[in-house]
Amino acid sequence: MSYNPRHMKWWGWGDVDAGFNSEIHPGFWPYAKAQLGIEEETPLAAPVPLEAVQMPEAIANPRFLAELQSALHADQVSDSRHDRVVHAYGKGFRDLFRLRQGSAEGAPDLVVYPENENDVLVTLQAATHYDVMVIPFGGGSNISGCLERMETGRMAVSLDMRRMRRLLAVDAESFTARVEAGVFGPDLEEQLSAHGMTLGHFPDSFLHSTLGGWIATRSAGMQSDKYGKIEDMVIALRMVTPEGVLATRTVPKSSNGIDVNHLCIGSEGTLGVITEATMRVHPRPESRIVPAYLFPDFEGGLQAMRECVNRECMPSMVRLNDPDKTALSLAFKPVSSRLSQAVNRIFKGYLRAKGFDLPRACLMLTAFEGRSTDVARQLQQVSAIYRQFGGISLGSSAGKSFEATKYDFPHIRDFLLDRDVTSDVSETSTVWSNILPLYKATMGAIRAGILESGVPPWSGCHISHTYRSGASVYFTFGFMQQQGREMEQYLRVKRAAQQSFIDHGATLSHHHAVGTEHLPWLAADVSPLGVKAVAAIKHGLDPGNNMNPGRLQPSRDPFEEWSQIGSSSRLKTRAKAASS
Amino acid sequence: MSYNPRHMKWWGWGDVDAGFNSEIHPGFWPYAKAQLGIEEETPLAAPVPLEAVQMPEAIANPRFLAELQSALHADQVSDSRHDRVVHAYGKGFRDLFRLRQGSAEGAPDLVVYPENENDVLVTLQAATHYDVMVIPFGGGSNISGCLERMETGRMAVSLDMRRMRRLLAVDAESFTARVEAGVFGPDLEEQLSAHGMTLGHFPDSFLHSTLGGWIATRSAGMQSDKYGKIEDMVIALRMVTPEGVLATRTVPKSSNGIDVNHLCIGSEGTLGVITEATMRVHPRPESRIVPAYLFPDFEGGLQAMRECVNRECMPSMVRLNDPDKTALSLAFKPVSSRLSQAVNRIFKGYLRAKGFDLPRACLMLTAFEGRSTDVARQLQQVSAIYRQFGGISLGSSAGKSFEATKYDFPHIRDFLLDRDVTSDVSETSTVWSNILPLYKATMGAIRAGILESGVPPWSGCHISHTYRSGASVYFTFGFMQQQGREMEQYLRVKRAAQQSFIDHGATLSHHHAVGTEHLPWLAADVSPLGVKAVAAIKHGLDPGNNMNPGRLQPSRDPFEEWSQIGSSSRLKTRAKAASS
Repeated sequence: MSYNPRHMKWWGWGDVDAGFNSEIHPGFWPYAKAQLGIEEETPLAAPVPLEAVQMPEAIANPRFLAELQSALHADQVSDSRHDRVVHAYGKGFRDLFRLRQGSAEGAPDLVVYPENENDVLVTLQAATHYDVMVIPFGGGSNISGCLERMETGRMAVSLDMRRMRRLLAVDAESFTARVEAGVFGPDLEEQLSAHGMTLGHFPDSFLHSTLGGWIATRSAGMQSDKYGKIEDMVIALRMVTPEGVLATRTVPKSSNGIDVNHLCIGSEGTLGVITEATMRVHPRPESRIVPAYLFPDFEGGLQAMRECVNRECMPSMVRLNDPDKTALSLAFKPVSSRLSQAVNRIFKGYLRAKGFDLPRACLMLTAFEGRSTDVARQLQQVSAIYRQFGGISLGSSAGKSFEATKYDFPHIRDFLLDRDVTSDVSETSTVWSNILPLYKATMGAIRAGILESGVPPWSGCHISHTYRSGASVYFTFGFMQQQGREMEQYLRVKRAAQQSFIDHGATLSHHHAVGTEHLPWLAADVSPLGVKAVAAIKHGLDPGNNMNPGRLQPSRDPFEEWSQIGSSSRLKTRAKAASS
Repeated sequence: MSYNPRHMKWWGWGDVDAGFNSEIHPGFWPYAKAQLGIEEETPLAAPVPLEAVQMPEAIANPRFLAELQSALHADQVSDSRHDRVVHAYGKGFRDLFRLRQGSAEGAPDLVVYPENENDVLVTLQAATHYDVMVIPFGGGSNISGCLERMETGRMAVSLDMRRMRRLLAVDAESFTARVEAGVFGPDLEEQLSAHGMTLGHFPDSFLHSTLGGWIATRSAGMQSDKYGKIEDMVIALRMVTPEGVLATRTVPKSSNGIDVNHLCIGSEGTLGVITEATMRVHPRPESRIVPAYLFPDFEGGLQAMRECVNRECMPSMVRLNDPDKTALSLAFKPVSSRLSQAVNRIFKGYLRAKGFDLPRACLMLTAFEGRSTDVARQLQQVSAIYRQFGGISLGSSAGKSFEATKYDFPHIRDFLLDRDVTSDVSETSTVWSNILPLYKATMGAIRAGILESGVPPWSGCHISHTYRSGASVYFTFGFMQQQGREMEQYLRVKRAAQQSFIDHGATLSHHHAVGTEHLPWLAADVSPLGVKAVAAIKHGLDPGNNMNPGRLQPSRDPFEEWSQIGSSSRLKTRAKAASS
């Protein structure tokens, strides 16, 4: 294998040798401290050592294990401490907070590394036969709680797909590629690149997430404006379930009844394991530019985005920061030379002369890619629209700086957790006419939720992923922790944000999945009968409830269950049959 | 109501006063006779009178009827002969052939016309309670057998949605429109037009089909290249089922687990009744042009289509006829003046001088619509690509002639049935690299199927509805009937076409639904486990199997069942529980 991605650090984001470097971004921590009301710094709160992590003794199922051992190589099965801990959770706040404190109650009893579809089939058949639960695991980057075990009383296996990483076929004439689902973002793009192709899917988690994970959670990449969301890219797939293999055909579109691809997309591991997919791909772009703009206010930026949709000339990426997120972006800038500081002063003077009220100004990041002639035309069209709504060009330096660090943002959370600061995100999507009301209500709800703990709030928002009918609305928030009440603080704010989405007509998430964190709002989002329909599929394909139990099916008191996650001894004993 | 569409003629396509006029198209019948080997014309085979149509005595369910009568107005319930016959079938070959012969064994016992969602709910609740089956009915234009009753032994109700036709809300800022599902194409476009909007969905059946029918069958309109297939346009919907109302939110995109919209789209009436949908709409185009082109051969036209996809400059409609379909189009031309006949002769000379081998030439119809500047640019770009592959412009007269008659083609089948000629269609989609192999194999299979009856075959094909990965491939065929063996002839040819699709990696239909006609190929298309997953949803939402029984669930011997449709006494006695 040319590419064998390591697991991320068990207690945080990214490779063990990567992290947030405050020397490169000297403005960030002073900005954060000022915003969050941090006057004196406490000693760094480092995670406990791996050896000190507490987890339940592994549940043994000797006959299941024997069956696996006869079918797989020895190195495909592991119950090592590191393997169990690194598969215990994804990378949500609750996940990281618990791990850093030394608790891995969600750890599986065993980790299996299939190398082909038959390995998956054998594992699922044995699991069904010996009553073992299986939690599919891609890159482990999910932040909504899709990966921890929700049940005890029977063995839990984490099925880590990273060895299934081959590009199986490219049909360049038809712009399709058939790929094993365990492939990571960079590996996939490198393999497609050899054929002159790209998938065009670049989520923030790109370095640490897999094709199968993207499909199972309905992921969106930064350039979804051009390439679509992952569900728009799937042409065919194969999914191994306890009842056998579901497989669809490589056809552009069909009228063959209910679209069976869509029963698998977004299934969050509850029905089976996606083993491969045939994806729509694109020639690698000949040209790419990343101009940035500044708008006098959020409203103007929003109107400009919507007008680009109306005129059918969207950039491949747009990201409009609100004033708070704009201030954060400025604080995040790499250290600058004296010369650039001087230029900045002159530019600020220019902006004031242009009538900009700087605290209200909003940064718009964009990217355009494709054929050079198309890119030039689109740029001209978009710039004219932006000017019409008061936007001025900032050139390409802000965009290049964003490009250089775009996959680094998740490291900030670890940096802040070291400093007793909680930060997290909640995101949704809504129609154009509802973006501002939703934005105002949710910012208010988040800040009120933080203030209830008596600490100063920080929150910001960006708009991205545009569609004809609307866009994604993405909130980031942060606050000082109160010792012993960290989880309570988080739950209050998270609940306020999510409830605001649902109360204001939006959805529980645009691209982060349901998992545990958004489950209490599922019935309000898709209606109780929608939940029942999903349960019916589960009942048909996984009658023994072996696949990722506890997901997509809210309990009778979902908020109570939700608030208990992370408290000890909250694991349910097994509920064998899928509810129907 | 400003618009109250009549039912189509009970024995054929369209309004009673509409039909194919061979005086306007004098070349058609001579061409058809020559192709089909018809030497002497037999007397016209007119349909039997309505009074002579045989149908089973209506099954009565007095308590069900009493419940309906207490909830609905008298004019919302009908068991008249005309109502029963007109709801007996759609407009497939088998439907029309049986009706013309005087057989309406598929007739429902009662027709109900709901006027709002509550009427639907009341009807479904009563049906569930009193064990009545319900077949949702839109425009009745389906040609795949979605509408006839497949079961006897309990009462069958046809639920005709045409009175639910209101445009409920338009959000012009977000380009969405909320509409009742029983609205017909022209009515919908007229109502949207008052808001400056269009849905952009124009299937061949546009005049005689409804929004709900489009969604339930995954319909495609002629301009899907620009506006998408119907499943791409649905933002939210409401579906009444025996277990209650499923409702989704008006959000552009979500990551809320399995996409519940897609459990309803394509459900062909088997789960419930779609009562309303919120659809993506577009400003009405400022400009529209319909240039046509001639390519030296089919291959060149295909390459040109695919290159437009590659260059991201697709027209809003493309339709490439193969040589046979091109010849049919020429024969279909309205009567021409002496002058235009002279021009034609000159033009043919020009083509020969250009190296065209006329019997191999292929007609490409296109449409471009949108802002004038965009249309002009796209036309320039597309024309340059077409020239590169040998295409020459024919100007706009062929396109205008197509526009004027585009909804009339289905009338030809009635004209031919009058003359003892069977004609029908089978269509599919496949990836670009497979279009030519599939085309050649299927044309061969259809012709061989016809020849087995000892009559001369006619078949032709067009390519339309392009996507990045491929396009729709649409076959039309016709042949002389042999008296008493008409159904056998049809089945042989239809089976040959469909089997060729499946054998060559394509799908059972691109936009005509599964119904009865394509059911034997469903398991091969979506895999047996895909069929099982769909059955599981059915089991969850319609446990009493009240909704359109017999659809989407192939029997153990699907070909045997398929070949029996249309033979008398083939109705199954009731199978109450949905298979799971």
